Amino acid sequence: MTAYDALMAFTRETEALAQIAGRLDWDQETMMPRGAGPQRGEECAAIAGVLHARRIDPQVGEWLAALEDAELDATAQAQLRHIRRSHARNSKVPAALATRIARVTSEAQGIWAEARANEDVASFTPILKEIIALRREEAQALSEGGPLYDALLDDYEPGTTGDELAAMFGALRPALAELRAAVREAPAPPALTGRFDEAAQMALSRTLAEVFGYDMTHGRVDKAVHPFSSGSGLDVRITTRTNPEDPFNCFYSTIHEVGHATYEQNIDRAYLLTPLGAGVSMGVHESQSRIYENQIGRSRAFTGWLFGQMRDAFGDFGIGDEETFYASVNRVADGYIRTEADELQYNLHVLMRFDLERALMAGDLGVADLEAAWNDRFAADFGFAVDKPSNGMLQDVHWSVGLFGYFPTYSLGNVYAGCLHEAMRAAVPDLDDQLSRGDASGATAWLRENVQRHGGLYAPREVIARACGAAPSEAPLLAYLKQKFSDIYDL
Amino acid sequence: MTAYDALMAFTRETEALAQIAGRLDWDQETMMPRGAGPQRGEECAAIAGVLHARRIDPQVGEWLAALEDAELDATAQAQLRHIRRSHARNSKVPAALATRIARVTSEAQGIWAEARANEDVASFTPILKEIIALRREEAQALSEGGPLYDALLDDYEPGTTGDELAAMFGALRPALAELRAAVREAPAPPALTGRFDEAAQMALSRTLAEVFGYDMTHGRVDKAVHPFSSGSGLDVRITTRTNPEDPFNCFYSTIHEVGHATYEQNIDRAYLLTPLGAGVSMGVHESQSRIYENQIGRSRAFTGWLFGQMRDAFGDFGIGDEETFYASVNRVADGYIRTEADELQYNLHVLMRFDLERALMAGDLGVADLEAAWNDRFAADFGFAVDKPSNGMLQDVHWSVGLFGYFPTYSLGNVYAGCLHEAMRAAVPDLDDQLSRGDASGATAWLRENVQRHGGLYAPREVIARACGAAPSEAPLLAYLKQKFSDIYDL
Repeated sequence: MTAYDALMAFTRETEALAQIAGRLDWDQETMMPRGAGPQRGEECAAIAGVLHARRIDPQVGEWLAALEDAELDATAQAQLRHIRRSHARNSKVPAALATRIARVTSEAQGIWAEARANEDVASFTPILKEIIALRREEAQALSEGGPLYDALLDDYEPGTTGDELAAMFGALRPALAELRAAVREAPAPPALTGRFDEAAQMALSRTLAEVFGYDMTHGRVDKAVHPFSSGSGLDVRITTRTNPEDPFNCFYSTIHEVGHATYEQNIDRAYLLTPLGAGVSMGVHESQSRIYENQIGRSRAFTGWLFGQMRDAFGDFGIGDEETFYASVNRVADGYIRTEADELQYNLHVLMRFDLERALMAGDLGVADLEAAWNDRFAADFGFAVDKPSNGMLQDVHWSVGLFGYFPTYSLGNVYAGCLHEAMRAAVPDLDDQLSRGDASGATAWLRENVQRHGGLYAPREVIARACGAAPSEAPLLAYLKQKFSDIYDL
Repeated sequence: MTAYDALMAFTRETEALAQIAGRLDWDQETMMPRGAGPQRGEECAAIAGVLHARRIDPQVGEWLAALEDAELDATAQAQLRHIRRSHARNSKVPAALATRIARVTSEAQGIWAEARANEDVASFTPILKEIIALRREEAQALSEGGPLYDALLDDYEPGTTGDELAAMFGALRPALAELRAAVREAPAPPALTGRFDEAAQMALSRTLAEVFGYDMTHGRVDKAVHPFSSGSGLDVRITTRTNPEDPFNCFYSTIHEVGHATYEQNIDRAYLLTPLGAGVSMGVHESQSRIYENQIGRSRAFTGWLFGQMRDAFGDFGIGDEETFYASVNRVADGYIRTEADELQYNLHVLMRFDLERALMAGDLGVADLEAAWNDRFAADFGFAVDKPSNGMLQDVHWSVGLFGYFPTYSLGNVYAGCLHEAMRAAVPDLDDQLSRGDASGATAWLRENVQRHGGLYAPREVIARACGAAPSEAPLLAYLKQKFSDIYDL
């Protein structure tokens, strides 16, 4: 066996174990008996320990060294690039620090949840300070001289820098704020009201999943408190949720997760259980979930079809025509909560997180000043004041679990989705005809061919550039949002 | 940290990983998308490899050596006994042999299933020969001079020998055959007929599970093709099945698995994720499932209560009184299939497997002669001829997956259940009053206190002897069966 074959056999086992760890998380959110938590904690720690040991295994380093100058094809080189990166990053972080981060962030989730329930920022700040100090220490270990923030960002979006994102987001923010202000002046379409049977919501959810190309022979749909997608390759599961008063939440959560899941399902099967066999970055992943959810799922053509489906499932629900239904699906409303935000306002939330966490990591903003900074920024971008911490800086779990550098990938995903949507429209000119019949196979086929099948073969920006024929830019997203909301709101 | 603490910390992680491996199996039988098989195979192999490596880890050997003369309490000594045994057994089997056995038995399951479907013994015999040769080779490696069969038996029932079982079963067989012959002469009670709603079966199944003390906060009930129990400690799940024409299959499968599961749930929580934190042997495990299923679940008192539950759930189902219902639940009928056999005939099936597989392992019976030996023995014990291989030697999956030495634990479990039942009746004199009200908590409390809580603390026979105040013997089981079936059949 060559060094490459040996390394790949070892890596394949590691990837299989990583799939198991992911399935444990799925089980915890969907099936686990409620009293099993303490035991599950030990199980998760045990498999995480096994995975970490394999990722820093010195033998991996030796194989990599032996392959330093090997002549390999492009696929093998891409595999090695991923393995080398994972080995280097995991090896650079001292075990004691990794353990400490795991312990502190585990403890912090409970403290954050209680602080949020009690509207008590002060009880959360000490541990948030500790988390930031630990993540800065980790970033020091990982960084090769660049900004600390970039070292963390690189975990979620390899090859992208904070400065690049700041330039992109800097162009996005004023334009979004301006568009939002115009929309707020215009008369709002009606909101959906009434009650919608939850079993019928789940049934239509499954239909939607299949319409968007989700393969049920390699997946399943269950309910969970927070929708998510889990797994790669031949076993990619999604969850959704139901609320009798808000079927859109169910349907668009489903479509969003289907975007993540079909990406994983459609990766070239030759990459199964290898580093290339998973979505390449959080940003590209989010581009798939968001293009399904928004550019396709909330389009005039597709909502026209969905309107008929909802009439079939629920009878008359108070909205009488496709045009009003389309406006209602895309209704822009004031709100504090990022995860509930509409397509137009969502990125303003994310851009705020990005600027704040970048300042925290750079040391330009102290935790003591975070709430004030949050509230000032919110008032500036949204035009009204945060009323309580659970609607402000305590609303997201991310920082309590140590996720710094993750937030911007949400908006980067939207930017990528804007680019892909523009290219897809050009390539599939009759897309709206298809969507108006409830047929998303043309869209899925284009995304599979141009993005999804590649898995980790290309760097994130390269995947998008190849699919679109141009470097990613925020311009297509902005143009799309301007046109869409100008139409709906008669601006 | 002392060597003992270090060893136990390592072992605890291993046990946690073993729980994960078990949960993967559960998922495969209940939740896994049907196209995920090939990936799941690699996942199972990867975690099995991790577990094996930990079990033979040289550091475990060093810790054990360092603790050779350590003064430890009885619990710690029991932990070491289990760890030492597992380390020694796993270390004795060469890795290449273990891999070969895994590969051949994996392949054999498909060949067996096809042979059974085609009634084609000849297509199965070559691989069965290979499996037997491999298991004999393994037994050679494990054996310390005793019979090869005993070396395999020791995996499932530590400390019990083939000769001990042969003596016990030798006393059982003629008595069972005689009782069976007498029952066959007597008029049979009516069989249950009609159709029974499957959702109502599942609902009553859950009631039964709770009646027998199954803790739903640390477990769950799902459907699967073959009922099973899975997991230890805080997460012990069961499955059952429904057949619209046979609700007894659902109810008694549930009660059987609840016996296995409550054993695991009721082990002293101090043993969680340690070698003592699981049922001590297959025989003791089966004693719990069978005493719940048969001595309690099929008793006159309990079936009286169940009759009322079934009337509530299904209305009039053609059996008009408790006495007839009791007889119907315990109806003895001719049949070929072990897993469908009633309480009276079941052990005759198992005793046959035991004698045949022991002869195969000893080299006294060749695979070429197995079918004839099976059919001769069946005719002698059951009084009619096997009509086709799927009703004969191809009916059980066990040998195709290499399980030699496992079968006798079924009957040993029944023998143990007989002993425990006798002791429990003496200790809980009003048990029938309780059971006739649908209250099994007295039985469960006695079993928890005298058997279940100990987990792996005592050797299997010792657990039973302590609970019963006497060494295990087949006599109580025989006496119980004679009385029960003499009553029902007016012998």
